[in-house]
Amino acid sequence: MNNLRFENNTLYLLDQSLLPQEEVYITPKTKEDYYFAIKNLQVRGAPAIGIAAAFAMALVDEDKEELKKYLDSARPTAVNLSWATKRMLAAYKDGKDLIEEAKAIYDEDVEMCRKISEYGLSLLKDGYGILTHCNAGELATSRYGTGLGPLLLGKEKGYNFHVYTDETRPLLQGARLTSYELEKAGIDVTLICDSMASTVMKEGKINAVLVGADRIASNGDTANKIGTNTVAILANYYSIPFYVLAPTSSVDFSIEGGDDITIEERESEEIKEMFFKTPSALKETKCFNPAFDVTDSSLITAIITEKGIIRKPFKENLEKLK
Amino acid sequence: MNNLRFENNTLYLLDQSLLPQEEVYITPKTKEDYYFAIKNLQVRGAPAIGIAAAFAMALVDEDKEELKKYLDSARPTAVNLSWATKRMLAAYKDGKDLIEEAKAIYDEDVEMCRKISEYGLSLLKDGYGILTHCNAGELATSRYGTGLGPLLLGKEKGYNFHVYTDETRPLLQGARLTSYELEKAGIDVTLICDSMASTVMKEGKINAVLVGADRIASNGDTANKIGTNTVAILANYYSIPFYVLAPTSSVDFSIEGGDDITIEERESEEIKEMFFKTPSALKETKCFNPAFDVTDSSLITAIITEKGIIRKPFKENLEKLK
Repeated sequence: MNNLRFENNTLYLLDQSLLPQEEVYITPKTKEDYYFAIKNLQVRGAPAIGIAAAFAMALVDEDKEELKKYLDSARPTAVNLSWATKRMLAAYKDGKDLIEEAKAIYDEDVEMCRKISEYGLSLLKDGYGILTHCNAGELATSRYGTGLGPLLLGKEKGYNFHVYTDETRPLLQGARLTSYELEKAGIDVTLICDSMASTVMKEGKINAVLVGADRIASNGDTANKIGTNTVAILANYYSIPFYVLAPTSSVDFSIEGGDDITIEERESEEIKEMFFKTPSALKETKCFNPAFDVTDSSLITAIITEKGIIRKPFKENLEKLK
Repeated sequence: MNNLRFENNTLYLLDQSLLPQEEVYITPKTKEDYYFAIKNLQVRGAPAIGIAAAFAMALVDEDKEELKKYLDSARPTAVNLSWATKRMLAAYKDGKDLIEEAKAIYDEDVEMCRKISEYGLSLLKDGYGILTHCNAGELATSRYGTGLGPLLLGKEKGYNFHVYTDETRPLLQGARLTSYELEKAGIDVTLICDSMASTVMKEGKINAVLVGADRIASNGDTANKIGTNTVAILANYYSIPFYVLAPTSSVDFSIEGGDDITIEERESEEIKEMFFKTPSALKETKCFNPAFDVTDSSLITAIITEKGIIRKPFKENLEKLK
């Protein structure tokens, strides 16, 4: 995919805001360019944002303290962003080569994704039908991705998977990003509406579900894109394994269980208007638009991290990762 | 709502193809006007189509045999259409007043919907949170509707329900029609994406689920708009009653169970393009687009018909309706 590429002292970013219609690489130069790219989702996905910000810290010739603050403000809630700029600032103070440090952040992300992908792939068989939701692929990371990692790594190793991707309303990441990147990777992919996942499961087309995670509580309850817990309940009903793939850094040991995870509610316009030619409902119609949901750990077959495959009891087994 | 109104020897039809943006009444005169209105979903919903066709048979001055054939061809699979034109043709041959016969078809539909609504309402309490999927409301019938009937009748009787409606991808009937007609009726309604139904159930906002039906097998398995069986599995998981509301004419005793119901698959364009400003996925991306799904009777709490509330065992209890 090469959505993040460093060549000739320049960072090339595949502009995700234009996908899947146009494949345009942007080459941010100024701090404003990077800020705009992060803020406007030209680069998205926590690890990918961190890597882009790391290169910004290395390549933009400004006061590094100020630069860090400015970049961090582009997406204040993205943990990887401030983590990466903090590490780059420390490297600067230690007199390290900043380009080498940014490359190291990139390489470490590739390595982490590769490990998650390898552990994930060990659970799958050639020819499997796979369902996924939202986008936890290469576009969101350096390479392979988390939720989609086993599919992209598997493709390299000659596996043939048949993937179904939920379109993932309201923001359609499954349609716009997942179906795009799997298609580009030459993987057999079929796009469905979120409401059709039950039908493909019932018809026996799905052997495993793979999803990413935004945050995992100590007991294994997992916050991820809205709709994930529906997929988990369906998988449970049809006795299909449901796997969460995420780095151990996504486990938040300060949180007991899913009830303590606050779910962001977003604007009605995303449901009623954003992508539509004409609004789908009346102006006065109320909407409820939670961005994430929590999947109860009882519905999760295993959590797959770069340190291995975690099974139940999650609380005890996640604790060992500390 | 008055989506079908007969006044001054003229049938007024609320053009559903323009909802919710514009409320325009059309007044078909020629057989071609009626054909166009039915074919292009200006009038939709099996009972509503039957009523419109009945008035066409009464009001259009043409050879009635030919007229019936012509109207039937507008939507060949709509059972109510040919049922209504057949009854009108028989009335014509018997020398009956055709306008009175069309009015009788309308009145009988109102009566049937009212009975379904009353039985349905007897299962609900004031203040209940209700989830519905697709559109089984007044717009699809003469009055009240089936799935939405208890809500509209309840409103008349002073009940205050809090309704959540799935937008119902891909054709968005929940957004375009259900949220519209409940809003117009002054009922508290909130629009959600299909993937959010699990969250509102989990948060305790839903006391009952009400849906319509396209066809019900002898054992109670129910075919309805794609996404219905997901809602049923979720309701089952959260121990929320799941009610199917439909006339007894929807029960197909020639069918043993859901596996014998053939599900129509529709074009990819509905998922990828139809409503979107720009396509949501690549041109080459495959889609799977089943129009309906089958809800296993084990997930259904009760089937509510104009003849009463049918509970398990469905096979035995539906048999008694014959």
